[in-house]
Amino acid sequence: MLEELKLEFQKNKEAIFADYFTFLKFASISTDPAYKGEVEKCADFLKDYIEKEIGLTVEKWVSKGAPVLFATHCSPEPQAETLLIYCHYDVQPVDPLELWTTPPFEPAVRNGCVYARGALDDKGQCFYTLHALKAVLKRGSLSLNIKVLIEGEEESGSTALHHLLKEKKEELKADHVLIVDAGLEEEGKPAISLGVRGLVAMTVTVQGSKFDLHSGTHGGIVYNPNRALVELLASLHDKDGKVTIPHFYDDVRPMSAEERKEVALDFNEEHFKVHFEALATGMEKGVSPAEAAGTRPTLEINGISGGYAGAGFKTVIPAQAQAKISCRLVPNQSPEKIGQLVKAHLMKHVPGGMKITVDIYPGMGLPVRANPTSKIARTMAMSFSTVFEKSCKALLMGGSIPIAADLSHISGGEMIFVGVGLPEDQIHAPNEHFSLKRFEQGFLTIAYALPLLAKKEVRV
Amino acid sequence: MLEELKLEFQKNKEAIFADYFTFLKFASISTDPAYKGEVEKCADFLKDYIEKEIGLTVEKWVSKGAPVLFATHCSPEPQAETLLIYCHYDVQPVDPLELWTTPPFEPAVRNGCVYARGALDDKGQCFYTLHALKAVLKRGSLSLNIKVLIEGEEESGSTALHHLLKEKKEELKADHVLIVDAGLEEEGKPAISLGVRGLVAMTVTVQGSKFDLHSGTHGGIVYNPNRALVELLASLHDKDGKVTIPHFYDDVRPMSAEERKEVALDFNEEHFKVHFEALATGMEKGVSPAEAAGTRPTLEINGISGGYAGAGFKTVIPAQAQAKISCRLVPNQSPEKIGQLVKAHLMKHVPGGMKITVDIYPGMGLPVRANPTSKIARTMAMSFSTVFEKSCKALLMGGSIPIAADLSHISGGEMIFVGVGLPEDQIHAPNEHFSLKRFEQGFLTIAYALPLLAKKEVRV
Repeated sequence: MLEELKLEFQKNKEAIFADYFTFLKFASISTDPAYKGEVEKCADFLKDYIEKEIGLTVEKWVSKGAPVLFATHCSPEPQAETLLIYCHYDVQPVDPLELWTTPPFEPAVRNGCVYARGALDDKGQCFYTLHALKAVLKRGSLSLNIKVLIEGEEESGSTALHHLLKEKKEELKADHVLIVDAGLEEEGKPAISLGVRGLVAMTVTVQGSKFDLHSGTHGGIVYNPNRALVELLASLHDKDGKVTIPHFYDDVRPMSAEERKEVALDFNEEHFKVHFEALATGMEKGVSPAEAAGTRPTLEINGISGGYAGAGFKTVIPAQAQAKISCRLVPNQSPEKIGQLVKAHLMKHVPGGMKITVDIYPGMGLPVRANPTSKIARTMAMSFSTVFEKSCKALLMGGSIPIAADLSHISGGEMIFVGVGLPEDQIHAPNEHFSLKRFEQGFLTIAYALPLLAKKEVRV
Repeated sequence: MLEELKLEFQKNKEAIFADYFTFLKFASISTDPAYKGEVEKCADFLKDYIEKEIGLTVEKWVSKGAPVLFATHCSPEPQAETLLIYCHYDVQPVDPLELWTTPPFEPAVRNGCVYARGALDDKGQCFYTLHALKAVLKRGSLSLNIKVLIEGEEESGSTALHHLLKEKKEELKADHVLIVDAGLEEEGKPAISLGVRGLVAMTVTVQGSKFDLHSGTHGGIVYNPNRALVELLASLHDKDGKVTIPHFYDDVRPMSAEERKEVALDFNEEHFKVHFEALATGMEKGVSPAEAAGTRPTLEINGISGGYAGAGFKTVIPAQAQAKISCRLVPNQSPEKIGQLVKAHLMKHVPGGMKITVDIYPGMGLPVRANPTSKIARTMAMSFSTVFEKSCKALLMGGSIPIAADLSHISGGEMIFVGVGLPEDQIHAPNEHFSLKRFEQGFLTIAYALPLLAKKEVRV
């Protein structure tokens, strides 16, 4: 059956890629209100496309934020189980824009890869998933109900979907939940993911004077907000790389020996060095790189700004300086609790008598750890092994999918995270790209898995 | 004579202000190459204006950077001494633009003040100086040769003028040098300045990975360049507010008891709080606010940037983070030496195995301390006392005038710093403004002083 699916893909790939590129052209940046119109247009295009080209019934759920699409296919068999697939059509901001070789919303193919914001995350993964469904449904009836939930605010906290969950509880019931927003560790090495980290983020503003001051006239008299901010932020890690905020690690549940057996915690340092020109020097003392990303919480400064950053020089003491910081969380940490801990610590420790405000970002995410022995986990592992012709590993994702924990709870199903992204695909960064070969592999992993999942039993 | 000058100003002020506003409309931002054309246009306007409206002969000196204007008036008396006046027509950048109430290059009058970039610094001071010359020369011949040097790169290090100095040594010979780019401490309190601080500035770039990374996938593995930068910058001051870089203070010459008698080192903390909503919390331990700004060196972070600073959130680990830092220097510190000290320290201490580059900005300035008993100092003090009807103080400026030290050396004359700016005029910041009443006072201080200076002896 794999060969037939490959042939089917080859036959249709030009049309699929053409439509995929159209999808990539929408600047559906959910975090920036300036792109609201583009987000809406992208949702409308996708709804229309799924109805006309994929052949599913689509509802557009409108709430506070970006529209959520809910596409369904009912199996004629009354005993059929239900699979809920999740992906998202929104993307990350594009700056620094000047580092893109070609514009982020004009997809360009170079060396077998398409370069565009969202090429992989998550428009690419969403698109091959839809075409995998089409290919499978075309082959005849399937003893599996399909529900596809595609949201437009994954990159900004899934607020709209979060508000819809209770109201749509019945619609979202499922036996299996497949989150198609994950990836592999290395090219050609199949893997599924058993967990994501949680997330809480905030903006920290340190305010000094009423307006910018002259660094000559006032330098030495006032405390520079840039200095206050760097001193405050620098105090958040100790020399061993540990977060210094009291009680930050209190709720971290150590991995059991069994859990350690299930997941791969190896790390290819050489590969890392070559692809990113980066060193693995950010871990807490005594923690390996893979453990650090999969099993330990972090506090990162995602953005910092204050004063003049343009060409040349401006001898200013800015009125304010700002940082955006976020924490990745692991079981059993609570984003609300950690958010409050970090906020209280920052408020208490700002140097120099500055005023400080800390705004916790409403979009949060709980950490998730999935069951490695579930039917969906075993099915996807088998499909990945078959497509890649190698045994499939289980990983822990360092990233977060804000809605995953709620979705797991509301659906009542077993959850697993899949995808064919690679760490070097530059998601969230300039020149995000996705290889067209991996697009096909992604298509195959989903298409091959569906009939397996429709069977009563799966053996791996 | 003061009354006559006041009448003269009142008679002409509408035309003077109209021309002043035209001068303010040029976006002559010297530090940003994007404004090169505006700088050139501003110089051409000013040359033409001085020739036609002020009545001096003007040379336009063209070197590597912005044009330098050199205007002269020769006294018919062969024994006449020579006064060299310095000011500048370039201005600071305008961002953050959104904080300006009215556009920075569209002068607007509110409550008796004109709001515009350069309203005071230094277009305003330049303009009243030119009209003071006009008013005095109109009254008849003066036993004083006048040279006016107006440069266009004061805000970016005076590189062009620096290169011209040797070549123009003869032209710049003078007995007295008046730098019209200083100010008062408080409204209505006359003061001249006996010194400026030196300046050396640099851009510090911390580079981690080749491109931005995902703070989920890689968070905990790589050292975040934002973290490395804040840790590095936070280490530059100790708890007592002292710069921690070894040998930073080695060459600081303590003020003698005599010097302390000459200069006013009082500070109005209440006034400071009301005008800037700022606290005087940035001094080294045991140093008073006025001492801090006038007599002690500083290290300030003028700008910091790294990662995402836009609306919403971006969960990124940036490839690089950058800071612009500058040091204000006092006698006998050398900008070259301090620049190298700071650079070497930063290069050596960057955390996390990051790559670091430190680019020292070519525009530097030496600190200057003037002779309080010189003829020009006594003349200007007398003129300020007369105009403001109060005894005139001597101050030490916290700011820098990069070319001052060289100009003092090349001219061979005694130097003094004057002006009628106030700390709350928001120079270098949004909503820079200058009161039209002080414009007139500035005009009077110069116009009243010129005939005094032309006399053989001055008694204060």
